Amino acid sequence: MTRFPSFTALRAACLDLPPGDAAAAASAADRNAALTKPMGSLGRLEELAIWLAQWQARNPPRLDRIEVLVFAGNHGVVAQGVSAFPAEVTTQMVANFAAGGAAINQLAAVAGGRLRVIPLDLDRPTADFTGEPAMDEDAFLRAVATGYDNVPAEADLLCLGEMGIGNTTAAAAIAAALFGGGAMRWAGRGTGIDDDGLARKRAVIDLALKRHAGILGDPLHVAAALGGRELAAILGAALAARRQRIPVLIDGFVCTAAVAPLAKLQADGLAHALAAHASAEAAHRALLSELGLRPLMDLGMRLGEASGAAVGTLILRAAVACHTGMATFAEAGVSDKL
Amino acid sequence: MTRFPSFTALRAACLDLPPGDAAAAASAADRNAALTKPMGSLGRLEELAIWLAQWQARNPPRLDRIEVLVFAGNHGVVAQGVSAFPAEVTTQMVANFAAGGAAINQLAAVAGGRLRVIPLDLDRPTADFTGEPAMDEDAFLRAVATGYDNVPAEADLLCLGEMGIGNTTAAAAIAAALFGGGAMRWAGRGTGIDDDGLARKRAVIDLALKRHAGILGDPLHVAAALGGRELAAILGAALAARRQRIPVLIDGFVCTAAVAPLAKLQADGLAHALAAHASAEAAHRALLSELGLRPLMDLGMRLGEASGAAVGTLILRAAVACHTGMATFAEAGVSDKL
Repeated sequence: MTRFPSFTALRAACLDLPPGDAAAAASAADRNAALTKPMGSLGRLEELAIWLAQWQARNPPRLDRIEVLVFAGNHGVVAQGVSAFPAEVTTQMVANFAAGGAAINQLAAVAGGRLRVIPLDLDRPTADFTGEPAMDEDAFLRAVATGYDNVPAEADLLCLGEMGIGNTTAAAAIAAALFGGGAMRWAGRGTGIDDDGLARKRAVIDLALKRHAGILGDPLHVAAALGGRELAAILGAALAARRQRIPVLIDGFVCTAAVAPLAKLQADGLAHALAAHASAEAAHRALLSELGLRPLMDLGMRLGEASGAAVGTLILRAAVACHTGMATFAEAGVSDKL
Repeated sequence: MTRFPSFTALRAACLDLPPGDAAAAASAADRNAALTKPMGSLGRLEELAIWLAQWQARNPPRLDRIEVLVFAGNHGVVAQGVSAFPAEVTTQMVANFAAGGAAINQLAAVAGGRLRVIPLDLDRPTADFTGEPAMDEDAFLRAVATGYDNVPAEADLLCLGEMGIGNTTAAAAIAAALFGGGAMRWAGRGTGIDDDGLARKRAVIDLALKRHAGILGDPLHVAAALGGRELAAILGAALAARRQRIPVLIDGFVCTAAVAPLAKLQADGLAHALAAHASAEAAHRALLSELGLRPLMDLGMRLGEASGAAVGTLILRAAVACHTGMATFAEAGVSDKL
């Protein structure tokens, strides 16, 4: 028995979301105001500590157990020539993750996070969504459940990421379906496709939007028809995190598109999630803006693999260290403002 | 015998600066191009690894020994009512640093850096520069030498910061002297002064610029007349780092103003320095722009104490981890671009 037996069951779960813990947030805000610094002078570090307290329902917040989940999938739409790299790179990179040679291996280690890479049926790419839905209901719900069930209840923070040749095409299609503007607004160069490839990518996305015009008003059907297994798993993991009140760091464009249906279904559906960075994939900024997410950093990264999220955890560690370790004005005998 | 017996000797040192190591930079760039990621997809992390290699004259670069130096000074101009906090807070915060209770204690620990706080004659504030130069030649050169001599040759990275009630007034005066625009362009709220205080601060700066009009064309005399001991020490430390090819992370507005004379004296005088962040002190962005420095982060911080620089080291750690730990395409058996 799968966790979500139907779209209806999944939709019900997406609409039944707990709020953050207001008391923990208030307690964190009180402590923040007493620490030996001018009020507000640590900028977003102050907000981050309070946000973590709110979603961990605990002050002080902690970052003892950081889970980095990278989901991998393959995409039938790659046959249309939308990526700069061949499809077999997805499997090759999963092997590289296992061997410890990828960027995320190094970044998860620096972040002090536990990395798990979860390949989803790499030998069975999703269908080419210019012809039919990428996934049928069963395949989609299974992928969502895989993401959901891989989130441990004990996690203090969840970093989400993906690997999948062709998946910026899927992400752009989802963004266009949810927020309008067509391929022109959402398609970018991904891993580095050339001008001809970009033109093909745009045509493919606009064709898919026309093909699936009938379901564009339903965020979960959009995720199934235009997404991919790794995007569906990210959606499931973000949902699991919210329902267990675990704060989430979102990575780049693909990851953000994957979780966007949560916000479309319920306005505060991503209140427990933070955008770690603004990717160099141009449409990411527009997508963050549609979602009201303010990125922590802009380092020109566009790799995926949860790489931006892992770097973002370093900023959270700085925030938690200040919040928990600093003395108060009273403790330190420091004069407050004149 | 002090390290710099005269302005002339210091100026000569500021004009005798080694370049970075082009061979180490080229070696780092070659390795970067071979790693298992689309070229450029780690954005600034790639640049940072190459920049560290260039200034450490070593590929791969390393971050085993990170020195965080915080210089503290007191300012006679505080008598004019330019700060939101009383002058005794400088000494109180130095005690807080020693007790481990300040933000920089927590951030240096997260960064894996060694923190040293160096107070400079806190019981003898500099002169009120609306009436006379803040420091005479001897006091200025001693402070510069203190900074210079506290930089260990073995450091892999130097983070610079300051503590000094009133020192955003000194920093704004230096910025105005070096780059024009008067107090209106450079004076901000510092630790949080109110409207009346900001008006006083502006008047004080413009008065000082008029008083010292005769020396505004000489960057070192500007640093002596309008600066403070902790700013002079930062200048000396940045100079020492350059002459020993140690890369530097600059902190916020005060720290940037302190090192600005190096760039005024020689165009590439800050090539070994990186701006860790854009401070919420509004003039910082303008100053970084004048210096051609592109900040790594914008977290709305405005604390000083090297806090932004310490957070910036986390980004450098991420860069070095990827650069040194990732597999190449050949090692991992991953296909390169189509």
